[in-house]
Order: sequence, then structure tokens, then C-alpha cells
Amino acid sequence: MAGTDSRREPQLGGPAIVLVEPQLGENIGSAARAMLNGGLTDLRLVRPREPWPNAKARAAASGADLVIDGARLFERTRDAVADLRHLYATTARPRDMVKPVATPRQAVAEMHRGFPDGVGCGVLFGPERTGLSNDDLALATAVISVPLNPRACSLNLAHAVLLVSYEWFQAAAAGFPPPLSFDRGSPPATREELFNLLVHLEEQLDDAGFLHPPEKRPIMLRNLRNIFTRAGLTDQEVRTLHGVVTALSGRRKGQRGSS
Amino acid sequence: MAGTDSRREPQLGGPAIVLVEPQLGENIGSAARAMLNGGLTDLRLVRPREPWPNAKARAAASGADLVIDGARLFERTRDAVADLRHLYATTARPRDMVKPVATPRQAVAEMHRGFPDGVGCGVLFGPERTGLSNDDLALATAVISVPLNPRACSLNLAHAVLLVSYEWFQAAAAGFPPPLSFDRGSPPATREELFNLLVHLEEQLDDAGFLHPPEKRPIMLRNLRNIFTRAGLTDQEVRTLHGVVTALSGRRKGQRGSS
Repeated sequence: MAGTDSRREPQLGGPAIVLVEPQLGENIGSAARAMLNGGLTDLRLVRPREPWPNAKARAAASGADLVIDGARLFERTRDAVADLRHLYATTARPRDMVKPVATPRQAVAEMHRGFPDGVGCGVLFGPERTGLSNDDLALATAVISVPLNPRACSLNLAHAVLLVSYEWFQAAAAGFPPPLSFDRGSPPATREELFNLLVHLEEQLDDAGFLHPPEKRPIMLRNLRNIFTRAGLTDQEVRTLHGVVTALSGRRKGQRGSS
Repeated sequence: MAGTDSRREPQLGGPAIVLVEPQLGENIGSAARAMLNGGLTDLRLVRPREPWPNAKARAAASGADLVIDGARLFERTRDAVADLRHLYATTARPRDMVKPVATPRQAVAEMHRGFPDGVGCGVLFGPERTGLSNDDLALATAVISVPLNPRACSLNLAHAVLLVSYEWFQAAAAGFPPPLSFDRGSPPATREELFNLLVHLEEQLDDAGFLHPPEKRPIMLRNLRNIFTRAGLTDQEVRTLHGVVTALSGRRKGQRGSS
């Protein structure tokens, strides 16, 4: 079966699809085909289990060579998403992390409002069996969760990718409402700008002895990262917060010096 | 990845999924899983290429045993759809047959308007490579076509099934508008009632020498079938048309007798 030729032909490109530790080449290929069905082309792979390039992936892609050939490989999830300004994580299990949750249809509308061509947005998908780690989940601005039969809500990886790319195309073909402008004169920060802010903050907190005891440090850091990643900060706001951290740390050092 | 537990739990069941000559057990299993994700359970197989039951289908179904165990096998498509009152065919290629066309989202809304729990509705899917034959297509009331990237609009069989079952669940979970009542006091005819009418009509047309020359008979019949299958006839209307055919034939015989 196949779909209709749409009269309106949305631009190829769209949000990035980031597969973290995909286990099977077939699943990557099938996801690539599903992406291209919806007009998505930016595929990023983080530590795929099988070697890449992968013949089984290409066969399963059934002609979506454009996506397979353009796929980029990364060692760390944070490098794979560094340039993105709005990032969703796909997950089902509730985690003890506060994040906005959207359906695929809502997420696509949100992405398109901020980024008409989807560039700068991305969606993270975890390994087939285990899903995303909490650390990868903490990188995301928000979570996508698909309303499904609660007695059978586990989706095959390529099927999950298909639902996002299908919804992207439905909305793109139907014509979105005009995108919101970022009236603060600054686009949302890239993940990299955000990481740099977090590193700055963490260094200062370490220096201040805030991140104690050591066994609690990882979870304290993850919770902090989560607060700032989901805040939807702009470039300008990130610069402001760097200033805040610097100012607070300087004051602390001054106080120490005078004590 | 997996979906959220929806607060509203729609009834399992829904429209029938009819796979005509599916080639691979894996694809049947993957389609069964996709069905159950959307709460669909009525799977019908017409001449699957591999023997049934099929271990690869069960493995690919990842726990959707309910669907696999309940699957019914048919030799002919028309037997597989005999009890259905509203039937869609999935196809991409334009055919020289006049049928209403709906997207999956529109089709789901239409099905739910007439049949709140989906029972009595069905969707036909053709073989992986070739799609539905024109004769199978002629059995359907309408066609489903998925708006997709025109440069890559060929969907994997299980992906096509997923999009229908996903849309069914989205609409069911969101709550449909109240269904229309059939105010003519009669539900849409089953495919079987329709076949019987067509057989009656065809017999009379053969008798009248209308279906000539013989080499054109198949296409003339298909065109006639298509007119009546897409008309959305009720039980009552089918009975009326039987009467019309009988009356016309009787008059013809009468004229002959008197000539």
C-alpha cells in the first residue's frame, strides 16, 4: 500500500530523528523509510549496536537511501543533539522528572509553531528493549507519549518513528498556522549553549560545596539539568544566567575573602 | 518506546483488518501488534503465502497473541468481507474506478459515525508488492489513501495497518461525536446482501443479452459492482432493488412472450 501524492509538497528536512543505541540494522532501515514517508531526512545514530554503514539497514530502508546515506554517527547523545533548540524524548514509563508531555500530534504542532521547517528540533528514541536512560531523558525539553491501548502500548521502534513523521507530514500538508515569532528577539538556545551554562553552574556549585554528599551528586545534577532544559531558555536568557552564576559566585568568593 | 496509558479505555474490537495474500509471516505479526496498539482485534487473512498458524508471525506480534489466535483464514476476499457493512480499500495508484477517497483520519471518523464500536466496518490491505487487485478494490465502499511524501509514498504493510489503528485509537480516546442514526430504519447492507443483489442483477443481464461481447463482460461487471458497492445501500434499499430487477425482468419476459 502507498499514500497519495499530495498537492502541496512540503520541504524535505524537518525535525531530526535521533536513535540512541538502536540494536538492529533492520530497525534503523525501517525507521529511515518511515522518516522519508513523512518527508524527514535528518537521521542521527548514537552508538548503534551493529557496525555502520549496515547492509541490513539499507535493505530495510526500501529506497530511502537519501536518509541512510545522510545518517550521522555520534558517540554521545549530547553531541548528537548539541545544535538542536527544541528536543523531545519518547518514553512511556513515568519517570521522577518533571517535563511537559505531548502527544505526537501536539508535539508536531509545537515544533512547527516555533520552527516552520522543523530545523532545530529533534526527537530522541531509546534502544528497542530498554528505552531512554534518565540521563538522556534529562536532555529533552519535553516528552512525547503516544495514546495507545493500555493493554498493548509497547511500540516497535520504526513504528514509533513512523507516527512522528506521519504526524509531521499531515500537519505540514494541511498547512500549519503561522509560526509564533520569538518576540524576545532571540531564538531558543541550542542544547550546546545550555550544556555550557550547566557546566558553568555545576563548576560553581562544586566549588561552593553544594553538590554533597558525593553519592547524591549525579541525581542532584540531573534534577538541575532537567529544570533548565525544560525551561525553553532563549540564547539571550542563557547569557543572562551565565551572568547570574558569575555574579553569585563572585559575591561568594568576595564574602569568603572578607570572612 | 511505548505509549501512555489512556484514562479512557476504548473497547477492544473495532473495524476488521483484512490482509489479502500477505507474503511474509513477520509482516502479519507486525500488523497484529500494530492492530492491538490501537485496540483492534479482528484480523482476517485471505490466502496468506506462508502456512498458517505461523511461528514467525507470532514472534513478530510481540505479545499480541490475542489477535494472532483470533485470526480467521479465507480462500476468497468476498467471503472475508461478507458480514461487513462498510468497507475501505487501501490503495495508492489511481484506478479507473470511481470511489470516494478518505485519509485514515477521515475514514476513522466516518466509520465511527455509522458504527460507534467499529463492528461491521473493515479495511482491506493488498499484498506487499502489488497492492489490491481491481476485483478486490471493487468490493469496497471507499478508498483510504494516506497523504505522504510524494517522493516516497510506499508504505510497509504493517506501517499502513498501524496508521489506521493509531487513528482509530486517537479518535476513540478523544471521544467521537455522537454517531448518526440511520433514519431510514435500516442499517447499511452487508457485503453479502450486496453480492446477492449483484448476482441477481447479473443473471438477469446475462439473460437479456446485455453483457456482450464476452471479452467485455468482466469489466462491465466490475463497473456495475463498483456502482452498487459505493452507493452505501441499506438493507431495505437492497430489497427494493431486488424487486426492481425482478419487475424489469418480468416485464421483459412478458414483452417477449407477447411479441
